[in-house]
Order: sequence, then structure tokens, then C-alpha cells
Amino acid sequence: VTLASTSTVTHATAQVLDRLRRSAPRVQCLTNTVAQAITANCLHALGVRASMATHPDEIVAMSRSADSLLVNLGTIEPVRLDALVRLLDDTELSGKPLVLDPVFVQHSPLRLAWAKRVLKRGGVIVKGNADEITALRLHFAETGCRPVAIVTTGAIDRIEAAGRNSIPIHAGHPYMAQVTGLGCAAGAVIAACAAVEPDPIAATAAAMTLFGVAGQRAAAFSAGPGSFAVHFIDELAALDAERLSESHT
Amino acid sequence: VTLASTSTVTHATAQVLDRLRRSAPRVQCLTNTVAQAITANCLHALGVRASMATHPDEIVAMSRSADSLLVNLGTIEPVRLDALVRLLDDTELSGKPLVLDPVFVQHSPLRLAWAKRVLKRGGVIVKGNADEITALRLHFAETGCRPVAIVTTGAIDRIEAAGRNSIPIHAGHPYMAQVTGLGCAAGAVIAACAAVEPDPIAATAAAMTLFGVAGQRAAAFSAGPGSFAVHFIDELAALDAERLSESHT
Amino acid sequence: VTLASTSTVTHATAQVLDRLRRSAPRVQCLTNTVAQAITANCLHALGVRASMATHPDEIVAMSRSADSLLVNLGTIEPVRLDALVRLLDDTELSGKPLVLDPVFVQHSPLRLAWAKRVLKRGGVIVKGNADEITALRLHFAETGCRPVAIVTTGAIDRIEAAGRNSIPIHAGHPYMAQVTGLGCAAGAVIAACAAVEPDPIAATAAAMTLFGVAGQRAAAFSAGPGSFAVHFIDELAALDAERLSESHT
Repeated sequence: VTLASTSTVTHATAQVLDRLRRSAPRVQCLTNTVAQAITANCLHALGVRASMATHPDEIVAMSRSADSLLVNLGTIEPVRLDALVRLLDDTELSGKPLVLDPVFVQHSPLRLAWAKRVLKRGGVIVKGNADEITALRLHFAETGCRPVAIVTTGAIDRIEAAGRNSIPIHAGHPYMAQVTGLGCAAGAVIAACAAVEPDPIAATAAAMTLFGVAGQRAAAFSAGPGSFAVHFIDELAALDAERLSESHT
Repeated sequence: VTLASTSTVTHATAQVLDRLRRSAPRVQCLTNTVAQAITANCLHALGVRASMATHPDEIVAMSRSADSLLVNLGTIEPVRLDALVRLLDDTELSGKPLVLDPVFVQHSPLRLAWAKRVLKRGGVIVKGNADEITALRLHFAETGCRPVAIVTTGAIDRIEAAGRNSIPIHAGHPYMAQVTGLGCAAGAVIAACAAVEPDPIAATAAAMTLFGVAGQRAAAFSAGPGSFAVHFIDELAALDAERLSESHT
Repeated sequence: VTLASTSTVTHATAQVLDRLRRSAPRVQCLTNTVAQAITANCLHALGVRASMATHPDEIVAMSRSADSLLVNLGTIEPVRLDALVRLLDDTELSGKPLVLDPVFVQHSPLRLAWAKRVLKRGGVIVKGNADEITALRLHFAETGCRPVAIVTTGAIDRIEAAGRNSIPIHAGHPYMAQVTGLGCAAGAVIAACAAVEPDPIAATAAAMTLFGVAGQRAAAFSAGPGSFAVHFIDELAALDAERLSESHT
């Protein structure tokens, strides 16, 4: 998959969206309690199923029957870390797409240690804001650990992988940063796309484009971040190839 | 209570709604973290109070002073299961109305084991989608365990009990399945109705009718599942005998 | 700071709001899982950052780098109480503004015991409804423990401190009590204001005024508690000195 131009990204995104809606993958989200509801609502709006198991004794069963995995380090608790160990140790799960969201890793040595542990598994897509990704770069440099894709979110989202140019996604709206959990939900949508698109860069670009276009469209109807959050879900549910090609310029 | 016709259900529902608004029962919800907020918002819209205690050392005190109980198996964690054991073992709570929502029981042997343990208490109303109820039917057949009511949610909700005909509730809207936690909230509303209506079938039919009518009305104003979730709460709060009789046809 | 008249409160509130928007403090919220999302959304709408760490091994690091602290006793769990002990024992945190929200303390001896433990730290602002504050008054009388401010929420919010007159805040709307977690979010906003305003009474009055004015304005556009919750966030984000002076009469 070559992603040289915006129209190529848009076209590829429409194909990924079509696959999501037709196959309805399930994403097992080990995620923070703040973002769980909006994460599931975003997934549902795209036709994706969500499960949020956190018990160590069911995480493997729930993850094996899921199509991809999200590990978000917000509001980590001992029991959720026990579950994470089980998930990382299960060899049947080692090839399943996994997205890591290292929330506030720059403020917590505990989260940094766990982010490193997840990265060690290999095959990981990492999504974070500039502060979070910066906090991980030293680790990448020291260990040679390379995630299969790194997304740095911001006014322009940037996607990078070893040996490829960085892909900028010029979409979205400043309201997106004000809605709690929307960034975390983006991580889940990347995982959903990775369940139906084997190239991690293409999957990530599709997810960020879906989010960015829905955000641009929703902002047009919104009086503030409260109404934006509502319209965003409506727009995500209404996305199709035509709306994608109209909006993404 | 005979529930032979739709108008009878509507009339009985209006009476239950009136009792909810006048007596403001409190439902103690041992429920998943994804659905907690929307569950409490649905209860509040009906004039019902919600508590969400999960600590094993307070679950009995909070449950004894509550009017009915919800046990939802989504995002179960060891500590919440410890609390559940205390709740099930307390003899003062054995007669209190209890609704079980066996979320994703078909995907997790752990949840199946706990669903069986809750059912053993007796006097339980079970609410689930077709996959979840199917996963429990073998257990019903093998053990002879009979919940006092079984609700299978779907395009048409079906309510059944031993020795009675199945009652279909022709209300609701497809958006309802897209809003995270709304199915879980329905379980809490059944528990609320069971606090003011001793017949579990009548209580369940009233709850599903309240939800279905609010859903039908809300869908008329909604551009997608995001705005639907907002209007749904408004419609639930505005429900009265007149709106019930208009909408439920 | 003298807060003798409404116009003084309004003026002081505008100054606190300006400081929030310019300095973007971070509030570390050890709060219940029901209210986490709306709490963060309210903080974001005011330009404030939120963190919700709950792990005992990171609570101190996350709290030291935060500007103020919220302790809310809703949905307490053993692990969150372990984190609370660490937070209370850390001497570096002893001077940081801390708001206590004793949710449902009247129904749970466990919560009452923990509320007392938090109050013992000193320098605490307490916010609760009439039932919750009443449940704590005996403790205040018996021990001579004096929070630096006590807010009793209701149709009229009342703020009191030792040796000062009680300040009534005539703002808000009945919908506010129907939106789950909005009262808990008010506690976080008090903590945010206390991060930029050293006088606890002035900080508390500012927070309750921000909430009350946003609530009054939002109610004008709302068809029920669902749409109110959406407009409330929009109004909070749009608040400025002009809107404050217009609305607060």
C-alpha cells in the first residue's frame, strides 16, 4: 500500500470503513475508566463491537475471541496490570494487532515501565500526543525497539514507521482535544482498523482520517465541546465514501 | 395482573411510572464501569435514585437501604465479585428484587460461572440479548432453575416466565443498540420498576415499555446515535400517561 | 477578599476564570468511576487539565506534579483507598489544595470513616448536599475539626467558613441535580479554582458561580436533562466576564 497522496488515503480509508461495517470486528479494550463509554460509542458508530474485560481470569478468553486489542495506560490499577500480564504472556495472542496508548506516561514512572513492557511484545502500534511520544523516544533510541507504527496526535496527526516517510493527516478540529476520552477512542479505532487492514500504517492512516473527517464535519454544527461530542458520534455513524472524499482536502 | 393487550401494558406502565416518580426508590447497581453514567442518568430521568457501591465492606449497608438491586457482569473485577459474594450471602437481602444482566456471558467462562451463582439465589429477573440468553438456556434446562422473568432484548423485546405466555414489546429503535450502556441501563430500570411493582413480569413489561416508547420518540429528532442518546434522556424525563398512550401502538 | 455582594462575587469569579484559562492548572482527581468523564469534560471546558490516577504506586507522583487535588468517596474500592492513604501520608502534598466530596456518606459507615480520615489532614474544602453535610456536622462538633470551607449544594448553594458569614450562591437550575456526576464535577472545579485562588472561600464561591451561571444559561436551551448536560458543557466553555455579569443577578 502506497500512501503518497491525500486522495489515496481517502480512498483507502473508504475501503477500510467498508470492511469495518461488513465484518463488524470486536476490539478488546483494556482501557481507562474515564474513556470507556466514549470509546465504545465511537466503535459502535463505525459498526465495530467493543468488549472491555479487565478481570485477569477472563482477559485471555475475551482477547482470543476478539479481532484486535487496545492497551491504554490511563487509570491503570493493579488488577488491570495483572490482566495485562496475562494478555502479554499468552502466545496465542502474540500475533493479534495491538495498539498502545501511553496516557500521561511523562508524569508517571509506573506507566513508563509498563509502556516499555508492552512495547517489548513487538508488533505494537503506538498512539500518543507529542509529550507522550517524546517521553518514549529515548526508549526507542536506547533499545532499538521499533513499534510498527507511531502516531503523534495534534493539530496535524503524524504517522511514522521505520523506513517510511512520515504521513501527515490534515483533518480534525481543536474541539477534539477538549472532549475527554476522544483521543483514547482514537486508539481503539486504530485497533479496529488494524483488525481489517494488515498494513499497520494504512490501518492507522485510515483510523485517523475517519476521526479527522468526522471531527471537521461535526465542528460545523457545534456551539462548543459539549455539542461537538454529540455531533461527532452522529458524523462517525454517517461516514461513507462520499463524505470522506468531500471533506478531506 | 393480566397483560393480554398492548393497551393494558400501556396503562400498567403509566401506573408504575407514577409510582416511581412519587416514591423515588433507590437502585443499588453493581454494574460495569462503561455503563455507570448512562445508567444513573436513565434512573434520574425517571425520578429514581442510583447508588453504585462496589466495595465489599459497604455493599451490604448500601444494598439494605436500597429498594432493589442490579447485578451486571460487564467489566467484572475481583473486588466487585467479592462484593457480589457479600451481597448474595446476606440473608436480609434475599427477598429484595434483583435483576441480573449477564453481559457477554457467551464469551467468558468466568461470567457464566458467576451468572449461575447469582441465579441460584432465586427470585432473579434476567435480562440479556439473544446470544446471552441462549448461553444460559442450557443451564436453565439442566438445573431446573427458573428466573422469575426472562427478558430477551432485540428488535422486539420478549418477556417470559414459567407458565405464562411470552409478552412481546413492540417499541424501541435500532439506535438503542448503538448507544453504549443503554441495554445495561434497561436492566437498572427493570430493577427500579420491580421496587414499586411486586409482579416481576408486570415490572419488566413496564420498564421495557418506558424504554421502548422513549426510544421511539427520541429517534424522531435524532440525526444519529449521538444525538439519539441525548434525546432519549430528555424523552425518558418527559414521559407521562399521555405520551405513553400516544406512542405505544 | 470580601465577598459581601453578588457583583463582587461575579467580578472575583471572572478573575478566577481568567487565571484558569491562562495557567491551565491540572487537578488530580481520585474520584468515582461514574463521574470521571463529566468531571474531566467540565475541567477541560474551563481550560483546566485533569488526571485521574488511582494506582497506589503512581498517585504520589501524579499528585505532586498536579496543582490541586480532589478526593471523592463515590464508588470507593480497596485499591483507591490504598492510593488515598499514600496521598494523605505524603508530606510534600500536605499543603496542596484538597477538596473532599463525601458522596452518600450518610448511607455507608465505611465512607464516614474515610471522610473523617481525610478531614484530619487539615486545609480541606468539603462539598456535599444537605444530607451529606448533615452527616458530617456531628463530627465537626465532636472533634472541633474545621474544614477551611464547607459548601452545601442545593437550590441555593451555601458556602461557610469559621468566623465568616455564610455566602449564598443564587444560581443554577433543577436540571443540575438530574445529571449524573455534575455535583461531583463541581467538586473538581472547586479544586481547580483553589489552584489559582489562595482564599478557599473565594475559590469556592467562584467555582459555584461558574457552575451556577453555566447552568442557568444552559437551561434556557434545554428540553430535558439530556440536552441540558450537553449545553452545560458548551456554556461552561463559553463563559467570560460579560456572560458572568449578565447572568448572575
